[in-house]
Amino acid sequence: MIQASYLRESVLTKAHSAKQSTQQLAILPTASKNEALQKVADSLWEHRKSIFMANLYDIEEAYQSQLTENRIDRLMITEKRLQNMIEGVYQIIQLGDPVGKTLEIFHPSNGLVIKKVSVPFGVIAMIYESRPNVTIDALSLALKTGNAVILRGGKEALRTNMALVAAAKKGLEKTQIPLDAIQLIDKTERESVDILIQAKGMIDLVIPRGGAGLIQRVIQNSLVPVIETGVGNCHLYIDESADLNKATQISINAKVQRPSVCNAIETLLVHQNLTETWLPEIIKAFYEHGVEIRGCPKTVKSVKDLQVIEATEEDYATEFLDQILPIKVVNSVEEAIAHIKTYGTSHSEAIVTENTKIADQFLAQVDASTVYHNASTRFTDGFEFGFGAEIGISTQKLHARGPMGLKELTSYKYVIKGTGQVRT
Amino acid sequence: MIQASYLRESVLTKAHSAKQSTQQLAILPTASKNEALQKVADSLWEHRKSIFMANLYDIEEAYQSQLTENRIDRLMITEKRLQNMIEGVYQIIQLGDPVGKTLEIFHPSNGLVIKKVSVPFGVIAMIYESRPNVTIDALSLALKTGNAVILRGGKEALRTNMALVAAAKKGLEKTQIPLDAIQLIDKTERESVDILIQAKGMIDLVIPRGGAGLIQRVIQNSLVPVIETGVGNCHLYIDESADLNKATQISINAKVQRPSVCNAIETLLVHQNLTETWLPEIIKAFYEHGVEIRGCPKTVKSVKDLQVIEATEEDYATEFLDQILPIKVVNSVEEAIAHIKTYGTSHSEAIVTENTKIADQFLAQVDASTVYHNASTRFTDGFEFGFGAEIGISTQKLHARGPMGLKELTSYKYVIKGTGQVRT
Repeated sequence: MIQASYLRESVLTKAHSAKQSTQQLAILPTASKNEALQKVADSLWEHRKSIFMANLYDIEEAYQSQLTENRIDRLMITEKRLQNMIEGVYQIIQLGDPVGKTLEIFHPSNGLVIKKVSVPFGVIAMIYESRPNVTIDALSLALKTGNAVILRGGKEALRTNMALVAAAKKGLEKTQIPLDAIQLIDKTERESVDILIQAKGMIDLVIPRGGAGLIQRVIQNSLVPVIETGVGNCHLYIDESADLNKATQISINAKVQRPSVCNAIETLLVHQNLTETWLPEIIKAFYEHGVEIRGCPKTVKSVKDLQVIEATEEDYATEFLDQILPIKVVNSVEEAIAHIKTYGTSHSEAIVTENTKIADQFLAQVDASTVYHNASTRFTDGFEFGFGAEIGISTQKLHARGPMGLKELTSYKYVIKGTGQVRT
Repeated sequence: MIQASYLRESVLTKAHSAKQSTQQLAILPTASKNEALQKVADSLWEHRKSIFMANLYDIEEAYQSQLTENRIDRLMITEKRLQNMIEGVYQIIQLGDPVGKTLEIFHPSNGLVIKKVSVPFGVIAMIYESRPNVTIDALSLALKTGNAVILRGGKEALRTNMALVAAAKKGLEKTQIPLDAIQLIDKTERESVDILIQAKGMIDLVIPRGGAGLIQRVIQNSLVPVIETGVGNCHLYIDESADLNKATQISINAKVQRPSVCNAIETLLVHQNLTETWLPEIIKAFYEHGVEIRGCPKTVKSVKDLQVIEATEEDYATEFLDQILPIKVVNSVEEAIAHIKTYGTSHSEAIVTENTKIADQFLAQVDASTVYHNASTRFTDGFEFGFGAEIGISTQKLHARGPMGLKELTSYKYVIKGTGQVRT
């Protein structure tokens, strides 16, 4: 009990300090924020030795805990990776300041002037897993948008995150940024997440980034508004009127170029008129790329000689993030849309066709953050959209949908100036 | 157990039907939606007798259940009130269609065309209390924005709501609107709310409207994104440099014109240099308007002869929605801002001053949906902002802040057209 209350106090004290800093943050001029980011970038490089050292301890412990090679790789900060993080900070300096913009202005007949002005959220809590680059991304995006940030990274990256935040804060010492604007939760018990996401009034927004389990737990327990990110059960539908060359290139790219990311496809839908012609070809091409195919009965039947494994319902519902691809033959674009409606996660969905009417039907009726005609789903990304930065990809419809950049980390307020108006 | 599972099935069947209708709704042309609204308006008037009859039963039962006069009044539909509801439908017909607008367009160098297009949310669940006009407001706003709507009104208004929805649906019979787009939950057990707000995947947005208890319960239990509405612990700060004539008029208007609404003020903050001069005057003016004053020690002391009751901490934290007003003397605008930070609910906050610098500081540092300089807080309202309609006033920062009109009932998606682009 004493420990639980100590944990609670520790987390809430940090949340409170972050909240206290927001008033000062909200009114910082762009130049001060950019100068602070510059100092962060310099300080990260200056303190690289202590960062690498901390990272080494984390990696050593990760080996001892027998984490997978994959997770250890995500955890590791090489000199190159640190340079990339710093490069990311420089990119954020270059971007325009999204705060303090007049978004709309109304002039009602009573003489009031009503301005809708962009403002920071206040305090954003980032809850994430092993990648330490999220620490610097989130911290820099928060600084630029005038938000305070509470960072709750994974247990296995704690020493690294502490070193990164210490270096960043060291850089901020000589700037106008209140140091309380950046808080690292160094308690990695699960409960520290629950305490954070229930700190309504102190935290304005929670962004979870990580596996489906983490995200669902945050949604289920949060009292603070959440932006749901990331899970991508994405589909590509090849219509009977597709340019088959485009179909092949997009299919391979959307699955193979980087299967472990959320905008890679997880099921291929193919019009039945292509089962005899294009389908066997693409399956062979996937085999050459080392992709395991799981087919619907029609797929299995149409390419008997290739001995395709039969797909299960569960396969259609799974975000594999791996070299596995269910293929389903459909009768029409309507059936493709219905399949996506059942199994999709509203992330990214694409059609390949030369029939504009069918393309438009697909684009209008598929309910997802990003819908594509004749392009790979892999473009759903803040950098590809030209945002210059990305805090995550929203799969919900409230506030932000798809890639979230700087603008998506702001809210707005109405500022009304009068000359004594009262309501009659 | 059988009853619980029956309730569950009944609610979820309706949510599922609503979800099924969204695909068709999302692509309806503006003319079809306006024609449908016209039919709703006509049908409401045509079926007025059955509406009044149903309302009479509800009111009779309300008397038997000894509901307060106030609540019975809110429940009642007079001919005039029905006409007002119908007038509201006509106003929504006049407004522009917020769906299908290209909000932004990007042309990256790879030749993709990326359009950000406004779309409906999908299914919106409205959870509200006794006012039956919310039923028609919500239904009409949903139709115009291409959203399906699930209506869960208060128990005491059930017959009235059933008659209103039946009339509206009768009108929709000869239109392109799928009737499943409008669902009334006729199970008024508390559990029906819990089932609704946890129907993630079937419902895209929950908007609770009503008392603080209802709103908090929805936030605590919802798995679907929620827009928090309504609770307004609003303040008015009279600065030492105020035009005292404006100060008096705005103070009286913001408190007295309609004390029962969320944008009325709940505490008056007064600069200490006004305690000898303006403060006694305004207290007398409030007394003349029947307002009970509760003062801080300085207020009580400065107007000894008026025998003001002493205010408690709880008074500052209370949204009275009544003719009661705590008054607190502060040393500075900073102290006023700090008081608002502690007790405010981010709704509407105002300053009266002729000092522009102090006004700007207040407008920038007070974190609320709407901040005012020299005007009454009573203007925080969708109609006053020129939105032509209002579904509620958001006090959160995610998605929508302040009055929510048609635009706030839409989300967006990215529609990307390519010529075979793949990511390298």
